Amino acid sequence: MLVNIERIKKDIEELSKFNATPSSGITRFSYTEEHRKAKKYIIEEMTKAGLDVYEDAVGNIIGRRDGTANNLPAVMVGSHFDSVKNGGKFDGAAGVATGLEIARIVKENNIKTKHPMSFIAIVEEEGGRFGSGLLGSRAMVGKVAKDDLGKFKDENGISLACAMKDFGLNPEEYYQAKNWDKKIEAFIELHIEQGPVLEAEQKDVGIVNAIVGIAVYEVEITGRADHAGTTPMDMRADALLLTSSIIQDVNKLAIEAGEGTVATVGKLQVSPGAVNIVPGKVNFTFEVRSKSNVTVESITVNVKQIIQNKCKSQGLQCKLNEIITIKPTLLSEDVLSVLTKKANELNLNYKIMMSGAGHDAMFLNEITNVGMVFVPSKNGRSHCPEEWTDYEKIKLGTELVMETLLEITDAKD
Amino acid sequence: MLVNIERIKKDIEELSKFNATPSSGITRFSYTEEHRKAKKYIIEEMTKAGLDVYEDAVGNIIGRRDGTANNLPAVMVGSHFDSVKNGGKFDGAAGVATGLEIARIVKENNIKTKHPMSFIAIVEEEGGRFGSGLLGSRAMVGKVAKDDLGKFKDENGISLACAMKDFGLNPEEYYQAKNWDKKIEAFIELHIEQGPVLEAEQKDVGIVNAIVGIAVYEVEITGRADHAGTTPMDMRADALLLTSSIIQDVNKLAIEAGEGTVATVGKLQVSPGAVNIVPGKVNFTFEVRSKSNVTVESITVNVKQIIQNKCKSQGLQCKLNEIITIKPTLLSEDVLSVLTKKANELNLNYKIMMSGAGHDAMFLNEITNVGMVFVPSKNGRSHCPEEWTDYEKIKLGTELVMETLLEITDAKD
Repeated sequence: MLVNIERIKKDIEELSKFNATPSSGITRFSYTEEHRKAKKYIIEEMTKAGLDVYEDAVGNIIGRRDGTANNLPAVMVGSHFDSVKNGGKFDGAAGVATGLEIARIVKENNIKTKHPMSFIAIVEEEGGRFGSGLLGSRAMVGKVAKDDLGKFKDENGISLACAMKDFGLNPEEYYQAKNWDKKIEAFIELHIEQGPVLEAEQKDVGIVNAIVGIAVYEVEITGRADHAGTTPMDMRADALLLTSSIIQDVNKLAIEAGEGTVATVGKLQVSPGAVNIVPGKVNFTFEVRSKSNVTVESITVNVKQIIQNKCKSQGLQCKLNEIITIKPTLLSEDVLSVLTKKANELNLNYKIMMSGAGHDAMFLNEITNVGMVFVPSKNGRSHCPEEWTDYEKIKLGTELVMETLLEITDAKD
Repeated sequence: MLVNIERIKKDIEELSKFNATPSSGITRFSYTEEHRKAKKYIIEEMTKAGLDVYEDAVGNIIGRRDGTANNLPAVMVGSHFDSVKNGGKFDGAAGVATGLEIARIVKENNIKTKHPMSFIAIVEEEGGRFGSGLLGSRAMVGKVAKDDLGKFKDENGISLACAMKDFGLNPEEYYQAKNWDKKIEAFIELHIEQGPVLEAEQKDVGIVNAIVGIAVYEVEITGRADHAGTTPMDMRADALLLTSSIIQDVNKLAIEAGEGTVATVGKLQVSPGAVNIVPGKVNFTFEVRSKSNVTVESITVNVKQIIQNKCKSQGLQCKLNEIITIKPTLLSEDVLSVLTKKANELNLNYKIMMSGAGHDAMFLNEITNVGMVFVPSKNGRSHCPEEWTDYEKIKLGTELVMETLLEITDAKD
């Protein structure tokens, strides 16, 4: 049972044509004309692969193949099919193609499994249009609130609910996305790494054991905007000088914590921001990610204390505002052990690793056993036109997902 | 011979009415309707004070009073009468009022001096409209180039030359501003401090011995914009992290140099500037000011080396661009000694200090003996609506300038 690299390539290439920004990467937002065309392609391919296809209440596309014991829960494979603005063609699409290819092979080889299989193309993971990231998976686990669909709006002021309606869905019935199929035995997602580690370590694939927890804060440091020529160094309250020492501290704390913990000051604005004026105010964000919730919490508490102490001792003011906190997700050890066993059998050069980015797997983990397979991202780049993964690696990842799926569905050749 | 605080207050209040932004500080740009009204007021007051008034080729207003030996060069007192955008009512105007008040007292008391006196209201010091700062004094010392007047433009694209023409001046004759009056024996300017030192040390006035030299650079640090979740700390090229350590270095170098040296990173922009992206590029400015040219140069060289070394060792790129370099100006020791003697006689609580900001005195120092008197700025604020100096301090400063003027002009009561 060989995975056909050309068919995977064709799926990814075809999906990349449903694109609102052909000259600058891939933009395939949810509930748009590009979404409609991608949906049509996926449904056709799923149907050709013998699946029983339907679209759920929010737009997830699910193709089911019966097992010999249809009372058992299905094992699911897939990923999302939307993209960020001006993104790449692999993020999401690679995992959707993995599902399509496996469905074809299972059909061609007339494989019988005990558990049913289902293949999914998940809607609105990126949240590029509405800022409503992970909507498809949240709806599947019943974590969408009634107001959400009216609240999220795109840059033209069109609400998610309105866009769904135009697309032919009934936003009032969003909750039915939870009542899909039967229960799920497991969910396996192939996704690009979006980081540089697998490439740097020359690995074929990564097997994900955890998705990091994350805490994001907004900080405002207020000093005093003084004339940069006439205000002696010891009479200043320079908000940027103080912030620069906090940036150093944030970096140091992440490195000390180790175990892949990362912390970043990514956004920073200086006021008034003139050559000859001592910065009176700095607004910045810091975020911490770790697979250990204790680490996220301890770094966060530490950074907050450092900011408050430094401001107090140097006579500046600070405001801290929590933007988001998500606990780490530990993926299924059972699925991980099958993935590891199969990776060894396939002679893959793999790495057990955590995911530094969020995925639908975070929510689906609440209702089923989740496994994730990463494939290397060239130069670690993603969410940009340069995003690239060698098709050979996607083929290896697809083989790993397929073998794992067949084991969990209890396949009889 | 008493300085009349009410007349000084009236001059400053009247000048503050010639203002394009009555609800948000003072905006009195050059060659505007506000300039025209201020000019009319100053000429009227000078005339009433018995001065022989004329406007030079660029718009400086000069009022002359003969001495008993008119072949001797005049001693000049004054300051500028333009303002920044949304500035305060004391910057410049305080020194103009000082000149007007002294002229009145000299007339009222029928004081005869050997040297002639002249009182000046200098045009376009701030450069708020055209970015052509210190134009009035530069023209007086012959440091305006022929193209300058056509090159400087305001935000509506109107050139300095065009605005001068509309104002009734002939821009072609700008060079005649150099051929004014006769030679000048000395120039004494009273100005607000624009810093917090005099107030903090509870001084009446400052006597300026030097105007700092300044070097300003633009810096661009280029690293790599990576996903903040998936890029391990040791695989990043974080332009903001590196910049934050440079900000610390700049600060440290200024403090170590001492003697009032200041250094500032005032303007800073982060790209792409997203919460979850490692900063790929930072653009910032740094400036150094010191009364010692050696210090300005050594700190500049040091900062440049630190930036280059850090970028090299951490695999980032940098570009450095010199914006401006002005050498320090040492003011006249002769005038300083008279100012100090008179300050002692008047029982003033004074401080010998340097100026961290630039002034017309920098250029006039090239052709004459310059002295400057600072009066305290409340909270060190200037160039803003909150700019304030107690009139009592302006009165004391005016007395000091007047006594010094009378000594240098060799007055006989």
